[in-house]
Amino acid sequence: MVPRYSRPDMTAIWTPEARFKIWFEIEAHATEALADLGVVPKEAADALWAWWRTNPAIDVDAIDAIEAVTKHDVIAFLTWVAEQVGDQARFMHQGMTSSDVLDTCLAVQLARASDILIADIDALLAVLRRRAEEHKLTPTIGRSHGIHAEPVTFGLKLAEAYAEFSRCRTRLVAARAEVATCAISGAVGTFANVDPRVEAHVAAKLGLAVEPVSTQVIPRDRHAMFFATLGVVASSIERLAVEVRHLQRTEVLEAEEYFSPGQKGSSAMPHKRNPVLTENLTGLARMVRGYVTPALENVALWHERDISHSSVERYIAPDATITLDFALARLTGVIDKLLVYPERMQKNMDRMGGLIHSQRVLLALTQAGVSREDSYRLVQRNAMKVWESDGALSLNELLKADADVTAALSPEAIDAEFDLGYHYKHVDTIFARVFG
Amino acid sequence: MVPRYSRPDMTAIWTPEARFKIWFEIEAHATEALADLGVVPKEAADALWAWWRTNPAIDVDAIDAIEAVTKHDVIAFLTWVAEQVGDQARFMHQGMTSSDVLDTCLAVQLARASDILIADIDALLAVLRRRAEEHKLTPTIGRSHGIHAEPVTFGLKLAEAYAEFSRCRTRLVAARAEVATCAISGAVGTFANVDPRVEAHVAAKLGLAVEPVSTQVIPRDRHAMFFATLGVVASSIERLAVEVRHLQRTEVLEAEEYFSPGQKGSSAMPHKRNPVLTENLTGLARMVRGYVTPALENVALWHERDISHSSVERYIAPDATITLDFALARLTGVIDKLLVYPERMQKNMDRMGGLIHSQRVLLALTQAGVSREDSYRLVQRNAMKVWESDGALSLNELLKADADVTAALSPEAIDAEFDLGYHYKHVDTIFARVFG
Amino acid sequence: MVPRYSRPDMTAIWTPEARFKIWFEIEAHATEALADLGVVPKEAADALWAWWRTNPAIDVDAIDAIEAVTKHDVIAFLTWVAEQVGDQARFMHQGMTSSDVLDTCLAVQLARASDILIADIDALLAVLRRRAEEHKLTPTIGRSHGIHAEPVTFGLKLAEAYAEFSRCRTRLVAARAEVATCAISGAVGTFANVDPRVEAHVAAKLGLAVEPVSTQVIPRDRHAMFFATLGVVASSIERLAVEVRHLQRTEVLEAEEYFSPGQKGSSAMPHKRNPVLTENLTGLARMVRGYVTPALENVALWHERDISHSSVERYIAPDATITLDFALARLTGVIDKLLVYPERMQKNMDRMGGLIHSQRVLLALTQAGVSREDSYRLVQRNAMKVWESDGALSLNELLKADADVTAALSPEAIDAEFDLGYHYKHVDTIFARVFG
Amino acid sequence: MVPRYSRPDMTAIWTPEARFKIWFEIEAHATEALADLGVVPKEAADALWAWWRTNPAIDVDAIDAIEAVTKHDVIAFLTWVAEQVGDQARFMHQGMTSSDVLDTCLAVQLARASDILIADIDALLAVLRRRAEEHKLTPTIGRSHGIHAEPVTFGLKLAEAYAEFSRCRTRLVAARAEVATCAISGAVGTFANVDPRVEAHVAAKLGLAVEPVSTQVIPRDRHAMFFATLGVVASSIERLAVEVRHLQRTEVLEAEEYFSPGQKGSSAMPHKRNPVLTENLTGLARMVRGYVTPALENVALWHERDISHSSVERYIAPDATITLDFALARLTGVIDKLLVYPERMQKNMDRMGGLIHSQRVLLALTQAGVSREDSYRLVQRNAMKVWESDGALSLNELLKADADVTAALSPEAIDAEFDLGYHYKHVDTIFARVFG
Repeated sequence: MVPRYSRPDMTAIWTPEARFKIWFEIEAHATEALADLGVVPKEAADALWAWWRTNPAIDVDAIDAIEAVTKHDVIAFLTWVAEQVGDQARFMHQGMTSSDVLDTCLAVQLARASDILIADIDALLAVLRRRAEEHKLTPTIGRSHGIHAEPVTFGLKLAEAYAEFSRCRTRLVAARAEVATCAISGAVGTFANVDPRVEAHVAAKLGLAVEPVSTQVIPRDRHAMFFATLGVVASSIERLAVEVRHLQRTEVLEAEEYFSPGQKGSSAMPHKRNPVLTENLTGLARMVRGYVTPALENVALWHERDISHSSVERYIAPDATITLDFALARLTGVIDKLLVYPERMQKNMDRMGGLIHSQRVLLALTQAGVSREDSYRLVQRNAMKVWESDGALSLNELLKADADVTAALSPEAIDAEFDLGYHYKHVDTIFARVFG
Repeated sequence: MVPRYSRPDMTAIWTPEARFKIWFEIEAHATEALADLGVVPKEAADALWAWWRTNPAIDVDAIDAIEAVTKHDVIAFLTWVAEQVGDQARFMHQGMTSSDVLDTCLAVQLARASDILIADIDALLAVLRRRAEEHKLTPTIGRSHGIHAEPVTFGLKLAEAYAEFSRCRTRLVAARAEVATCAISGAVGTFANVDPRVEAHVAAKLGLAVEPVSTQVIPRDRHAMFFATLGVVASSIERLAVEVRHLQRTEVLEAEEYFSPGQKGSSAMPHKRNPVLTENLTGLARMVRGYVTPALENVALWHERDISHSSVERYIAPDATITLDFALARLTGVIDKLLVYPERMQKNMDRMGGLIHSQRVLLALTQAGVSREDSYRLVQRNAMKVWESDGALSLNELLKADADVTAALSPEAIDAEFDLGYHYKHVDTIFARVFG
Repeated sequence: MVPRYSRPDMTAIWTPEARFKIWFEIEAHATEALADLGVVPKEAADALWAWWRTNPAIDVDAIDAIEAVTKHDVIAFLTWVAEQVGDQARFMHQGMTSSDVLDTCLAVQLARASDILIADIDALLAVLRRRAEEHKLTPTIGRSHGIHAEPVTFGLKLAEAYAEFSRCRTRLVAARAEVATCAISGAVGTFANVDPRVEAHVAAKLGLAVEPVSTQVIPRDRHAMFFATLGVVASSIERLAVEVRHLQRTEVLEAEEYFSPGQKGSSAMPHKRNPVLTENLTGLARMVRGYVTPALENVALWHERDISHSSVERYIAPDATITLDFALARLTGVIDKLLVYPERMQKNMDRMGGLIHSQRVLLALTQAGVSREDSYRLVQRNAMKVWESDGALSLNELLKADADVTAALSPEAIDAEFDLGYHYKHVDTIFARVFG
Repeated sequence: MVPRYSRPDMTAIWTPEARFKIWFEIEAHATEALADLGVVPKEAADALWAWWRTNPAIDVDAIDAIEAVTKHDVIAFLTWVAEQVGDQARFMHQGMTSSDVLDTCLAVQLARASDILIADIDALLAVLRRRAEEHKLTPTIGRSHGIHAEPVTFGLKLAEAYAEFSRCRTRLVAARAEVATCAISGAVGTFANVDPRVEAHVAAKLGLAVEPVSTQVIPRDRHAMFFATLGVVASSIERLAVEVRHLQRTEVLEAEEYFSPGQKGSSAMPHKRNPVLTENLTGLARMVRGYVTPALENVALWHERDISHSSVERYIAPDATITLDFALARLTGVIDKLLVYPERMQKNMDRMGGLIHSQRVLLALTQAGVSREDSYRLVQRNAMKVWESDGALSLNELLKADADVTAALSPEAIDAEFDLGYHYKHVDTIFARVFG
């Protein structure tokens, strides 16, 4: 976890305090269920909750000090709770194994993290939609291979991003369901010493599904799918970030990350405004992707479990969720305040002297009865002049001055082929598909 | 693609012939839709389908020869088709761009590949279920950290695998939906020269969804999610493969990959039977996982597309699907014919002289009124003798010979604590959860 | 292996014929050493080499047919050789294990592949050097964050690439040494049935080092290092490819991949010239990088070996080397024929009206006795006008028209600060460092 | 960075204090060189060093507070230093760019980290050597595929690990050289405003090489190679960790991680001793490997630099080095104190009733004049009895009771073939190769 790439709500999920609180809730709910089943006295559960209602502070240092002696984190925690609650606490954890607490806690944490990530996506979607509507018909050049192709609108670019992050939202919802399961099934998952009804009770109270069959642990294919999904979301972040970086290049400059009025780009070079936020997002995406493979390698635990996954998850569970949360929020801010320059978009689109309409003129000539070969030749000989002038000449004007062309097409007909509207007649259709 | 790790049905999807056939169908369906819209003559579509009904062979070499000249694969294909069909073929591809054909074709191929993979999983699930039912109550030791913990059944191990691959099936179905979309939207996705109804028609005919908003290409977050899912499935394969490899170790030998009666393990060492199939699966899983990151890196294409994804997909689309298909089938064969040795399972479980029941005796003494401290001491002093004898002594017998123990527990009571059935009382519950 | 991304020399290394030939040489050299030690008759080695000198064709199908029966590739090969050579062949392979042959063969193949890759790098370096010298003083703008910063030369860009690929060469030489080892040490590496002198003889004959201690196999950390190195080289390829892609963007267009005179960029859009080769290289780099992780996962084989690495290597040994060879050659071709447009470079550098010199004027004013605060204000008020004019105004001219500026600096002094030569005074130094 | 997987010396390299101290040294050395060149007053350098000799505390909070205003970390640092040193400090950083400081600082940090890692390896090598010598002739079974093959010694296993980590040491030394370079070359690497002699001076003072050609930054192929090397070392750690985990399995139990006399394996299951340290190492290896791909993706920065690498390095530079340092130290501790059970090794080797010697008897019969076919049959009919008895019968005894065998071999001759020494005759040779 790198503090500068962290936001407080997500970070809070991964603090020792938060973890111990979830542990307590799991233990207290389980004790409650055991009491209902007559396995432990009802007073035990009551005592736990009575203490909990006092909203007690969690003394992490005290628990750590006990762990330094016992070398066992869950036992240390239980010991500390017993010191606070008193004699009734000895009925906690009956028939359970440490992994029941650890894995169910991780499920709660990842579910909460998912909720934040989904909310992040919702915020991003709202901003994307607003800016897409705003620029629904702002003309800009579509580029394939980095080369001018044919016109699109800036709103279409954002609509594509909206659709992509809508898919990411769906994937995150599925990823949340993958990991939001509860296992209270004992040392090797057989419920030998704990009734399955305890698991059902805890699951219901925590808003988790019951894990159908666990070993000592919840199977790690679930977590692998979760982190793989985060890697996909990160890749979509990178895509939009790279788009902004390209648009802000000096030679393109069709959009820019927001610069506050008094802000300095560089103390030495006053002309500089760098797309540092989206470059940063590009790097953060690499990190979130980098956590996918360790998560995949965590699946093949030996027999009913080995503990090799544990150290991996101590890194990637906080790091992947905190980083992705930060990245989504940063991207939302970038899009929200993105400075968009329609005039520059138009200027760039025009820089090739109207060559981007060459295909349409070609088709018009054909439809006017000129053979395809001749049509191609007529367009090309004018297009090449434009090309060689580096856009100083205008294709439209050259065509109008070419008698062979005007023999087939009137000036008005030529102008019609240079109409951007032709390219935008289905923007409504696409927007309706994307935004409903 | 490595031939020895390939099966014909999946490989067939990725041949040039298969690709060209899909291309033709896309073009013919599109021409049909264009004819319905009055853009091209109805005769054009009729001519295409009439030729197609002759079930013509695809002359890949001829198409390649044309490509060697035109340097463009789709144009080469269209040229060859025109040579076969005649004049009416000139109406094909009207208003479309090459990516419309290429990406929609890839969608068809990945959808077909998904269908095979899902069928593979179904076959694996059927075998897992059969073997799980067969060994539902076959006792075996549960191991955490590779160390004996408490008893499970061999059927429970397979039930866990069944549940895991059921999740994989769900994921594959979702992954199929991710990639099964059709885009016929023109050079930069604006439908400038092709009506969206053409796309809808082709999609319906090919069983694909319509891509809501494409650029020049179908967005690659879809494919990233697809290949990430394959990586998760591969990891689950590795998990079960590693389980078998462990069970076949000389010292464990609780199960073995099938050996035909006359088969030789080694010409030099007649005692050898190696788990080569599951070792092989472990390696294949690494490969399928290795394709995830390139797929994630393919997402951030520049603007409306760059073509960097294309070479990646020429490798990973065949390699990942062919390898995973082979691996699933191989795993199914391994489980189907797995030699299971319940006697050895029992023998291994017994090798520690009944120590695996120490916890239960401890609890029984406590419930019989002995203090927890004394109970622990009584069990431990007998357990240590067993431990030091390397399992030659029996905990049960030692306890019965310990007067302090028998003062609290009768021999019958002691025997009761060594009852395996205690651990299996919820096997039915778990099986019902898994198999319904 | 994707045929279109393969070149014949590298591909030839990985054919069955090539493999079998290396197997034969290993076996024949070993038999020779065994004969020298008196373990087998000298006639055995003589017979093998006598047959070999006839330059016999390797009948792969026949060997495969034997393997289909024996289920063992090395035994199948030995059987076939025995059929050709006759009775003396029965002394081959004495005391050896299959892995001795397989792993030593892989070492030979990877060493040969390294030699090709190193030659590829040499060719690339030669081209980089030539183009760097050619454009040693071709002015072009240096960009950080994609934004104009200060001037560099195009030759400096290529010198950087030269230095980077020189490092890659050094790494490849080290990677070759990592894998070029020979192991002829028997079933578990103890030389129980084969004298270490056999290994030494074979190693010397094949130009390999002796593996100091093998298990059944050569340890896979060597191969991991090899493939990791290939991943680094691929990343450097990507870097230069991305540079070219950026330079070819429509708005930048400072360089272009070569287009032959008659070549068409697009049948529909005659203005298009796409950097498809470097985009392709970007994708190929992803693939070569993707093979690194499987190679790393191959290291932790169980005990004296498990065979999980084998399937991985059947994919990545050919695929990584063939792809990298192709990519290096393609990159060499791109740089060799790269169309470079110095005029456009100058034009782009000028597009901001000389703002790139603002820092130098600031320093000159300061040195002329104006306070730093005043200097900054004077430069800034003129720079902002240039900025707002989108480069239509000239900073140089505005400064000369600003009385407060000219009070401190003469027109000649102002001109001096706009001298590009100032930035290039150390180009010789850098070139000397890089090219010696 | 996860505190529990961190050691203080390595962590100290990555603190803000450590970073600021290196920054100061770079700036002060540069100022010194500038003074020598007459660019700045000699008093400026003197003032800086005079202050530094007071061993001043670095007030990180104060610097952070300035950065919160300036939004620029290097400027914030320079401002704070100026506040401490006074007027002479204004000559610092003359002609330099922030990356000169940042990248050279990273080089110093990675070089220091490398030194710790190399020392870690040295400690591990010393322990491996000691334990290898100790068990040079401790017989244990060699296993391929997890199945008994032929005898090795436990010392040979450790010698192999020694050789592997010796290679890792060589690789780390090379990786250190990759990253230990200094760049003081200005905004785009042209030395426009700073003389190359400044760079040479700083490099010499800091023990770094001069970067031959930098852009705005030191090229990231260097760092990619560094982190890739760390990934290889991590994989070798995993290999040895997995070996220990296998040896500690209940059924094998040939070695164990150290357990202190009073330690409890489990409060509930007193028979448990889990290989938790080596399982942990397995997970840590996954993490260090996971950082390789982001480092590779960092290479292809845009033009003279973009800043996407920066966030990646904020994670992986500390995390990869801290984790690997911890892992190497933990592995050293595991091997140092590893409990080795030669009796159990012998017992496991014997569990197959001497079948591991079947190959040698076969050869002896052949050499005694029995045909190979008859020899195979004679050995096999006795071997099968042993196999079916699960090792209860002894091959040696059965052979001696088989008249057809004893007709060819005397009892003494049979015994000779069961001599382990046969397998160990070249242990000295191998040890000499490895340890010199």
